[in-house]
Amino acid sequence: MKLYDYQLAPNPRRVRTFLAEKGITVPTVQVDLRAGEQFTPEFRAINPECTVPVLEFDDGRRIAEVVAICLYFELAHPEPALMGVGPQDRAIVADWHHRIERQGFWAVGDAFRNSATGLKGRALPGPDGYEQIPALAERGVARTILAVCQFVAGDRYTIADILALVTVNFAARINLTIPDDCSHLRRWHESVSLRASAAA
Amino acid sequence: MKLYDYQLAPNPRRVRTFLAEKGITVPTVQVDLRAGEQFTPEFRAINPECTVPVLEFDDGRRIAEVVAICLYFELAHPEPALMGVGPQDRAIVADWHHRIERQGFWAVGDAFRNSATGLKGRALPGPDGYEQIPALAERGVARTILAVCQFVAGDRYTIADILALVTVNFAARINLTIPDDCSHLRRWHESVSLRASAAA
Repeated sequence: MKLYDYQLAPNPRRVRTFLAEKGITVPTVQVDLRAGEQFTPEFRAINPECTVPVLEFDDGRRIAEVVAICLYFELAHPEPALMGVGPQDRAIVADWHHRIERQGFWAVGDAFRNSATGLKGRALPGPDGYEQIPALAERGVARTILAVCQFVAGDRYTIADILALVTVNFAARINLTIPDDCSHLRRWHESVSLRASAAA
Repeated sequence: MKLYDYQLAPNPRRVRTFLAEKGITVPTVQVDLRAGEQFTPEFRAINPECTVPVLEFDDGRRIAEVVAICLYFELAHPEPALMGVGPQDRAIVADWHHRIERQGFWAVGDAFRNSATGLKGRALPGPDGYEQIPALAERGVARTILAVCQFVAGDRYTIADILALVTVNFAARINLTIPDDCSHLRRWHESVSLRASAAA
């Protein structure tokens, strides 16, 4: 098993943080996105979508979606549970996770990919080039919501907290910081940033 | 337990089809999106996001994301399995499901919501108004990928097939139909459309 990774990108960081919380070590292969290694013929053969992370199983099968990769490790190594315990709790964690993706992570991603100079002509990840849409960058900033309680989805640290943490840090790249009046969010961010897994 | 639903919208249809495959009946409450019932104070109190579906548990807690709702029923009623069996298979089904969301369902959604006359000023679901972005509508059409094999994620019907089915039908609303040279996709679509659950 191996994990194709890039230390500076938010999506692989979600997986690394998840693995660190689990105490699992997986051999990684760095794919330098800034140098365009995701577009080489060698990496296209591994993932035609030209994205990381990619988890390669020992039988050679590969998956490339963050939640799918985390789900594999959650099921193969249930402790500590990061995706909820029992049907209702697991559904509620999944619900929060999707909500943060939609209102936070993807909003920041829209803003970042449609404004960063280095991503001109690559406003969407993947092999096909798409021009940046300035209106989409503006909308991304406008709609980003950053707000949580003690933990995002209940009384324990979950995959939803990991996504929220990565989102807050990702938002700094579009110059969004935690507003002064969001004391709950600030306290939560300071607290989760102290976890060892936050440095993964 | 009850499910807030709207018969004509693609997201609640994903849940209804999933439930029909499981043979589960849940009482539903129709929320007429075309009449704007999702914006009434009564419905905002149920889901501030102003979207359907919403699953309300007997303890009053609610979740509003399609995959989270499906996950609850998958865990509470495991047979027939619609989200894979075992860690690796479940991760692979989740991977396919996300891929179809990204390349199919959301691409169609971008095209539809940014072009439909009835959605002017509401290019994103939810309580906040966002203007349509014509470039996003064009990009949505351009990047929609419709292609599958016998079943989407292996040798049995799964949540990934349900999403692909809803996506193909949703794509008709932006005048995208199955291209003539996609005989595999056509055969798959004809076959899954015959399932009783397709009428849910």
